[in-house]
Amino acid sequence: MAGPEDVHPQKAFGWAARDTSGILFPFHFSRRATGEQDVTFKVLYCGICHSDLHFMKNEWGNASYPAVPGHEIVGEVTEVGSKVQNFKVGDKVGVGCMVGACRSCDSCDKHLENYCPKVLLTYGSTYYDGTPTYGGYSDTMVVDEHFAVRIPENMALDATAPLLCAGITVYSPLKYFELDKPGLHVGVVGLGGLGHMAVKFAKAFGAKVTVISTSPSKKEEAVNRLGADSFLVSRDPQQLQAAVGTMDGIIDTVSAAHPLLPLIALLKTHGKLVMVGAPDRPLELPIFPLLMGRKIVAGSCIGGMKETQEMIDFAAKHDIKADIEVVPMDYVNTAMERLLKADVRYRFVIDIANTMKAE
Amino acid sequence: MAGPEDVHPQKAFGWAARDTSGILFPFHFSRRATGEQDVTFKVLYCGICHSDLHFMKNEWGNASYPAVPGHEIVGEVTEVGSKVQNFKVGDKVGVGCMVGACRSCDSCDKHLENYCPKVLLTYGSTYYDGTPTYGGYSDTMVVDEHFAVRIPENMALDATAPLLCAGITVYSPLKYFELDKPGLHVGVVGLGGLGHMAVKFAKAFGAKVTVISTSPSKKEEAVNRLGADSFLVSRDPQQLQAAVGTMDGIIDTVSAAHPLLPLIALLKTHGKLVMVGAPDRPLELPIFPLLMGRKIVAGSCIGGMKETQEMIDFAAKHDIKADIEVVPMDYVNTAMERLLKADVRYRFVIDIANTMKAE
Repeated sequence: MAGPEDVHPQKAFGWAARDTSGILFPFHFSRRATGEQDVTFKVLYCGICHSDLHFMKNEWGNASYPAVPGHEIVGEVTEVGSKVQNFKVGDKVGVGCMVGACRSCDSCDKHLENYCPKVLLTYGSTYYDGTPTYGGYSDTMVVDEHFAVRIPENMALDATAPLLCAGITVYSPLKYFELDKPGLHVGVVGLGGLGHMAVKFAKAFGAKVTVISTSPSKKEEAVNRLGADSFLVSRDPQQLQAAVGTMDGIIDTVSAAHPLLPLIALLKTHGKLVMVGAPDRPLELPIFPLLMGRKIVAGSCIGGMKETQEMIDFAAKHDIKADIEVVPMDYVNTAMERLLKADVRYRFVIDIANTMKAE
Repeated sequence: MAGPEDVHPQKAFGWAARDTSGILFPFHFSRRATGEQDVTFKVLYCGICHSDLHFMKNEWGNASYPAVPGHEIVGEVTEVGSKVQNFKVGDKVGVGCMVGACRSCDSCDKHLENYCPKVLLTYGSTYYDGTPTYGGYSDTMVVDEHFAVRIPENMALDATAPLLCAGITVYSPLKYFELDKPGLHVGVVGLGGLGHMAVKFAKAFGAKVTVISTSPSKKEEAVNRLGADSFLVSRDPQQLQAAVGTMDGIIDTVSAAHPLLPLIALLKTHGKLVMVGAPDRPLELPIFPLLMGRKIVAGSCIGGMKETQEMIDFAAKHDIKADIEVVPMDYVNTAMERLLKADVRYRFVIDIANTMKAE
């Protein structure tokens, strides 16, 4: 059997976890030849998503080692297949969480490849050729053009990378649950990678935005730096009480277990609480408050490719980018430790092209 | 202070609970004079809703005694106020769970008086004149015409009474959550008063209907008598497994605590689980399955007056009526005992006009 280095013709280099410690090491592997519908690109920047950490440590049970994470990827096209229609060499492209889907199911027909039961993830899946998918902590990638989006020339490439996961994860439910109308009051629970993007998109849609956080220390940043209209400390019953029944919708980005009742209470009648974080155990759902206000608790998971392109174009138009800390590749293990402590405002982005050297 | 008998000019007689035993006794009281916008009617039939039982025993904490329950009321108009526009003497009318609302809030503006924060319930509220509202276990009622619906002449009055609560409770979410489109697959959890109406309305909308119940014994009735297309025993993991991912929506009528995960699993991507029963403690909500399929758990509570009329007209057109057991007034305490054991198919209706004699 060929090893990762020579199973495919295109040489690749990245950083991979070797075991559930999740510690990343330099890793030589290979990428498939550019297929007819493929785009090959040089990776420029890759965001660090909390999912990367879960994956590297196999906390979701889907890791196989070596594991190359990264699904907030921006790069420059270096080669295109003969049937590629939308990209040419030199174009800036983005790749998010998916690199394949069946293209024929109900979800795929509706441009919702993210809900295709056969979706192939950017890392941790087995591609159609039987080889593992490797993510964006690497110097080069090959992807079916359907799963690449165009990055407009005026966008900052480093600060755009996080839009490919964090951005679309909050943009999609704001659209689907009709929280994108001007004048609505939208709550955002948790001010991390997802939360800070939710504030920016909701503001761009014309909403009044209230950040709900356990940390009073985040108030100044939420309001002054990110432009939120108000701030609620979720552990302060008086603050919550004063805001009961005022919100049209809430985007809840928190992955830790937390009470839903106070959030449901913040909703107006017919309001929508949308979970985009994934607590690993069930939460308590009080039913009576749902009934009394015809309220909804929903989930949402990234977005389809068409909507991802729409989100990027919307971000370009409204100058929306992530607040990032750019780090060199060999800082990645330290960045992961800091991420675990939520010590980043609000997303690490690895400067792949300038700092990752094949050893 | 005037007692219940003489606080108002119109004599009334009904049955009332006197304490948390919930046992009903004959009760002489009075109704207000017919106001300008009021309709006074002779009560003909009144359904027995499980909420009546909760109220009579003060299980929801909103009872004051004597308590006259009943909010599935059909009657014949005997007097109308000078400004009444929609009814005349002799008309058949229905009254459900509400007799008042603010008429100026956001919900009222949208014909959703049922979600008005100032809604006045048919029993257990304090009316604008400061007197308690008394329900339909009584010989006569006075109601603002806005809170009465017209019962078309071709409808069976006894079997129509339960539509005023059980019917609208399931009709409204089928409409609001867009489960009223032909060809959808709708699940109905629990086959009682609400559940059997949900089967009938969903079938009339053109859905494929699957009843989900703990009782295998209900299968034959669900399919042969009510017209359900299929039946799942909720305690049979194999049956549930075979139906995973097949339903567009589920109307869950069960008030007892029960697991939501198997129901969420039955939903297709973007599917909707709508709770219309009200378990008295929180249920466990697993978040990951919601995210992975952009699924919704929602609540819904009766419906607005406009929609209630629409539901009645729809029922008249499609010959939808409740399956009932008509009982005399003095059987009511026995009926309550049987209701507690779910020993009724599927709704008791009291023949008020023919069997309730003032003593």
